[in-house]
Amino acid sequence: MKPLVRPEILDLAEYHLAQYPHTVKLNQNENPYELPEEIKKEVLERLAAAHWSRYPAFIPQEQIDLVAGFAGWEPAGTLLGNGSNDLLQLLFMSILERGKTVVISQPTFTLYKLLARGLGADVREVMMDRTFRFDIEGIIAAACETKAAMVVLCSPNNPTGTYLQEADVVRVLESTDGIVVLDEAYVHFSPGSLHHLLSRYERLVVLQTFSKAMGAAGLRFGYALVAPSLAVQLNKIKLPYSVNIFTLIGAEVFIRRWDAIRGWIGKILGERDRVRRALAALPGVTVHPSEANFLLMEVDRKTPKEVFQYLASKGILIRDVSSYPMLGRALRVTIGTADENTAMLHALQEVL
Amino acid sequence: MKPLVRPEILDLAEYHLAQYPHTVKLNQNENPYELPEEIKKEVLERLAAAHWSRYPAFIPQEQIDLVAGFAGWEPAGTLLGNGSNDLLQLLFMSILERGKTVVISQPTFTLYKLLARGLGADVREVMMDRTFRFDIEGIIAAACETKAAMVVLCSPNNPTGTYLQEADVVRVLESTDGIVVLDEAYVHFSPGSLHHLLSRYERLVVLQTFSKAMGAAGLRFGYALVAPSLAVQLNKIKLPYSVNIFTLIGAEVFIRRWDAIRGWIGKILGERDRVRRALAALPGVTVHPSEANFLLMEVDRKTPKEVFQYLASKGILIRDVSSYPMLGRALRVTIGTADENTAMLHALQEVL
Repeated sequence: MKPLVRPEILDLAEYHLAQYPHTVKLNQNENPYELPEEIKKEVLERLAAAHWSRYPAFIPQEQIDLVAGFAGWEPAGTLLGNGSNDLLQLLFMSILERGKTVVISQPTFTLYKLLARGLGADVREVMMDRTFRFDIEGIIAAACETKAAMVVLCSPNNPTGTYLQEADVVRVLESTDGIVVLDEAYVHFSPGSLHHLLSRYERLVVLQTFSKAMGAAGLRFGYALVAPSLAVQLNKIKLPYSVNIFTLIGAEVFIRRWDAIRGWIGKILGERDRVRRALAALPGVTVHPSEANFLLMEVDRKTPKEVFQYLASKGILIRDVSSYPMLGRALRVTIGTADENTAMLHALQEVL
Repeated sequence: MKPLVRPEILDLAEYHLAQYPHTVKLNQNENPYELPEEIKKEVLERLAAAHWSRYPAFIPQEQIDLVAGFAGWEPAGTLLGNGSNDLLQLLFMSILERGKTVVISQPTFTLYKLLARGLGADVREVMMDRTFRFDIEGIIAAACETKAAMVVLCSPNNPTGTYLQEADVVRVLESTDGIVVLDEAYVHFSPGSLHHLLSRYERLVVLQTFSKAMGAAGLRFGYALVAPSLAVQLNKIKLPYSVNIFTLIGAEVFIRRWDAIRGWIGKILGERDRVRRALAALPGVTVHPSEANFLLMEVDRKTPKEVFQYLASKGILIRDVSSYPMLGRALRVTIGTADENTAMLHALQEVL
């Protein structure tokens, strides 16, 4: 019998995520704050009045305009998706295939490699340096050598927290000729977005999401900012109605009420500093600089698995990232509320 | 400069959907009935209590179990998606690529061809006969000749309403060796699902949706029923968290309360009979049998465009499908409420 799916998929490992009971959840880089009740109420009231039996608008222009204004880019180059992963998939589907190469800086978000391999494309991985800075010259060399169709950069990078300077992104754009994806999922915790480069480079794709700083991971809302000429092409095969009525309404209300909720970013940044200092003071812990809502630490007295298991036994979930390239000694902790962070630090102190 | 996307996408036409003000909407095969208020309220109350800032469960097992029970298949072979299109895309991405062929019966839902071409695959189209029955022998011959990786069958077929008998689907499965997709989006209006064939054929994929009979197009919820062995492979590259918290809660409540809402199917079927007889009595109209919540009619006194425009001018939207293969004289009308159908019939009488 024929294989049921592409052989590259047969070769991929199955992914299992063990479930642990927990009281403190610092493993998915979520925003720990919940929306004020009156904002949730506003979303729910509008949802109650909506037609659930009808498809969302074919082109939700009002929401596109709002998101474009929020992000600072043109509506004609703004694509809405069911999370930014949805748009990453659209982009990969539209460009990558067997015989094409994508260059990925490692360690990074695992989905890039997984999707590219699933599509049968070649993945060329370029390691960061030992302090987790991007190897820009290595990325450019790999892209040129493989005539790469795409380079994927995540900034701030998950799970290292590294932020790419504008000059580095420009250097990649100027020295390569494929699509350059800049995944800015964590950008609201960083010095700032580089989406203004879109007006100079139609090969640039910027991805942002409401799942992190915007505190809306449950809604699944993301968007891509691209040149209008690229949007025309991507829209041809983008699934219609990919964003449901709840998420469209939610995104709209979040943007309109952003001034009332954005204060939580400052709280998270303050906690990031406090947690970083506290981690650095723990025995045998190296903590790396981060421009995101998480910190990467390396431990030398216990294995990451032992540390993870101990915290899990206390109901505290962090992420063991030791299976990532270069990260054999590493764990990633999301910045939560002050109480959550304190509980996590206390448990780390016990185990280390 | 390199083309930004795959050349097959550059060749695809841009899709524009003109917007018309309307009071009667019979153009998207939606369910005309809105959920009872107390069911919407139940969904909204559970949503109000949910954590919006947190991702949905990595594996929403409770909802998978419920959907599997509702559909009559194994949880291990049930995949949940952001509409059934999302799962169609996953399947196409996992199997189709340049050099692979998919066989599609025409006329049918346009997305199959669009997605396959967008992925660079070859599309072999097999026309239905003049009374819009599937050309089963033609489909099998095309699949064998091209060593097709996939055959896509839509039953009841959009936009013809044709229902495939079990013997025909079995014949395709027995005579070909690729994946056979059976899109059952409209199955709740038909004699019944053929998902029981899944236990005999691991190459069969059955797609169903909550957007039609279930009256939940705004939620974007669909599912795929497949052999557990195929589910293992597809889950490897399926985007995590593709279904948001509202849609998961909604799907669960819809299933639990299905007995309270399923009565609307009977009403739609009753109206389908009435509308079909009324259409058949109009001058120059040929109406085709349908096992779905819409009817296909051919007109000979006016062009479909003229008929569409006249109804649109009265605020009544139906679908001009004259650009589909074989359907140069055809329009598709969704079965709405009795009042909506009467308004549509009245306007047709005026224009024909």
